[in-house]
Amino acid sequence: MTRLALSREDAAARDWLKSWCRHTGLRVEVDQIGNVFGILDWAGGDAPTIMAGSHLDSQPNGGRFDGALGVIAACAAVEAIKRKSVEIGLQPKCNLVVANWTNEEGARFQPSLLGSGVYTGALPIDFALDRKDGDGISVRQALREIGTCGEAAPAVPDAYLELHIEGSSFLENAGKRLAAFTRYWGATKLRVAYLGQQAHTGPTPMAERRDALLAAAYLIAELKGLADRAGTDLHTSVGRLEISPNSPNVVPAEAVLFAELRSVSPEILERAEGDLNGKIAECARRAGVEFEIRSTDRRKAGRMDAGLVGLAERTAGELGHDLMHLDTIAGHDAVSMAAVCPSIVLAVPSVGGVIHHPSEFTTPDDCVLGTELLAGMLWHFCVTGEVPSRRLSGTAA
Amino acid sequence: MTRLALSREDAAARDWLKSWCRHTGLRVEVDQIGNVFGILDWAGGDAPTIMAGSHLDSQPNGGRFDGALGVIAACAAVEAIKRKSVEIGLQPKCNLVVANWTNEEGARFQPSLLGSGVYTGALPIDFALDRKDGDGISVRQALREIGTCGEAAPAVPDAYLELHIEGSSFLENAGKRLAAFTRYWGATKLRVAYLGQQAHTGPTPMAERRDALLAAAYLIAELKGLADRAGTDLHTSVGRLEISPNSPNVVPAEAVLFAELRSVSPEILERAEGDLNGKIAECARRAGVEFEIRSTDRRKAGRMDAGLVGLAERTAGELGHDLMHLDTIAGHDAVSMAAVCPSIVLAVPSVGGVIHHPSEFTTPDDCVLGTELLAGMLWHFCVTGEVPSRRLSGTAA
Repeated sequence: MTRLALSREDAAARDWLKSWCRHTGLRVEVDQIGNVFGILDWAGGDAPTIMAGSHLDSQPNGGRFDGALGVIAACAAVEAIKRKSVEIGLQPKCNLVVANWTNEEGARFQPSLLGSGVYTGALPIDFALDRKDGDGISVRQALREIGTCGEAAPAVPDAYLELHIEGSSFLENAGKRLAAFTRYWGATKLRVAYLGQQAHTGPTPMAERRDALLAAAYLIAELKGLADRAGTDLHTSVGRLEISPNSPNVVPAEAVLFAELRSVSPEILERAEGDLNGKIAECARRAGVEFEIRSTDRRKAGRMDAGLVGLAERTAGELGHDLMHLDTIAGHDAVSMAAVCPSIVLAVPSVGGVIHHPSEFTTPDDCVLGTELLAGMLWHFCVTGEVPSRRLSGTAA
Repeated sequence: MTRLALSREDAAARDWLKSWCRHTGLRVEVDQIGNVFGILDWAGGDAPTIMAGSHLDSQPNGGRFDGALGVIAACAAVEAIKRKSVEIGLQPKCNLVVANWTNEEGARFQPSLLGSGVYTGALPIDFALDRKDGDGISVRQALREIGTCGEAAPAVPDAYLELHIEGSSFLENAGKRLAAFTRYWGATKLRVAYLGQQAHTGPTPMAERRDALLAAAYLIAELKGLADRAGTDLHTSVGRLEISPNSPNVVPAEAVLFAELRSVSPEILERAEGDLNGKIAECARRAGVEFEIRSTDRRKAGRMDAGLVGLAERTAGELGHDLMHLDTIAGHDAVSMAAVCPSIVLAVPSVGGVIHHPSEFTTPDDCVLGTELLAGMLWHFCVTGEVPSRRLSGTAA
């Protein structure tokens, strides 16, 4: 599965979603960053609104469930609720919105959580529209190319719910099937450019080379060392490295690393960023090159809404299941949303803990169970009209 | 200057060369690998043939002189000799051929020296036609796309002469303007693939990651260490690294390094290859990944033809210049040719020793002086009909 944000494949998935919404009686709105909303405001303008969704973009050569499950589950849940309301003659006390967020993955454009970041006000719209992919195509151009730019976005909801695959193997190892991510790790992402001097790998004396890739190699090893020394509370990585000119017999002139630090502890994360900055400069000195830190994105660690976790526990109980409490180390649009409204991520098992890989898999039964949990929570709001208390996300312990 | 082998830009340069040849009265032949020959067989079939040339392809963002100078100089020399022969009524005793070799650089397709390697029989034609660039386009397809495939190649000449920029700063530092490369370094080039497991850089526990890029980073650092310990007699590099999927939050599944070892000493080169093989496996173990050595190309060190060096010295003397004796560490088509006929590379200064960089520069005066040296040597053959003795290249001391 390769459905990069705002690609033709993504456009096809968006078209499907919009068509489904219209067919099911939801009003479609698309905002300036391309987020797609399917709105069912059947309870009237004064009623609370609950939003559910996720993202349809994927990693290159990624899986079929990461993101897509949350959008499909929201669609299925809203459709079932609509049908059941008619069957039992319920006058719904709550409006519902299905959401598909643009560029959650951060694979094609950085930073990740771009669409939800714009929606919540964390990212200025022009900054987001100006982000460019590896081929120099901006979000603005990509939106125009697939003709998906809009203007309107619905107001911030009273709660945001997202179903997602777990992406690790805690549920599987515990023999359980449902979880809520109750804490989310913080992440600090740096784009570091090493700047050397293009030269021939033959005659240029070794002592005169200024090899940008060598500095990058030193830093990749040092970054792994940071994690090794920190134990399990710090995850580090370099997933992308852009090399120029990247020709077999040319000393690389430029190497741009996409480095990540992740921890549940703000202190560990801050210390790691300081250590990394020291290593960045040290590796530049060792290789005799210059460097620039081209961007730094920081996402704070925090807690998901306790009231929603409680509701998820009760709803899972009604379905005959325990609800595990897990940390999410990956970013989710619900992490963006947690800054502006009570939010939660519900999780179902990933076979073997696999994610971001074509063999990513969640069984049909678990997809259904997760969707039932989501639908049960949405049904609760529609029946009761209860507004989740507006406690926003705090920091993690 | 970006004129990659068999690109549209290369096609335009080839068209210029063919058009020049026809206009100057040279017969054009193109062989199966796209080498272009401009043939002036004015001395008849029994007379000896001397070939001069170089390559029109460049590195990405490379210089304007590397390769192109040698082709243009051969053209200018042949034209001048033709004109002068008419002026003085010389009956030439030697045929001349201008050559443009395909894919000398090895930037788009590997290995380098592809066209001259096929011409001299070192590389099978099907192997060469099947080489693919980074986008999966084969040499065969690229030749077809620019419509430059031919059938005929002239016979191996009695000598091959190539003018080239020095690409280092020995001439400049010595205050001299002409050199001959009398020895060429050997080179061993390996394509090493590390094979890990694609995973999410967030939730995947550090201990479970199999990061192909991490192994590559370890190896790049180790390869630099090999050169550091060997002193100045060993050059090592990684100029190209292909990473898959190369997405910011995905643990890299595959990293393919293009590693080079170069030395004038066969013993040092062999020992370095052994050390490198040990390091390749060690880095795989450290990162917990698998590896494959996808190809190994070895080019032996050797000496250029002593008779041609003597003629170059005498001709330089007639022009009022000393001829420095230098090693060439870079590969040249003359190194391919040295296996089948007496060959030489003549060199003119590179300002600041710069090569494979847009600021690569040789002064117009030095370009002219180098061309006069080449023309003087070709003139000598045309006047005397002397056949250089068929001593082929030996190994370097």
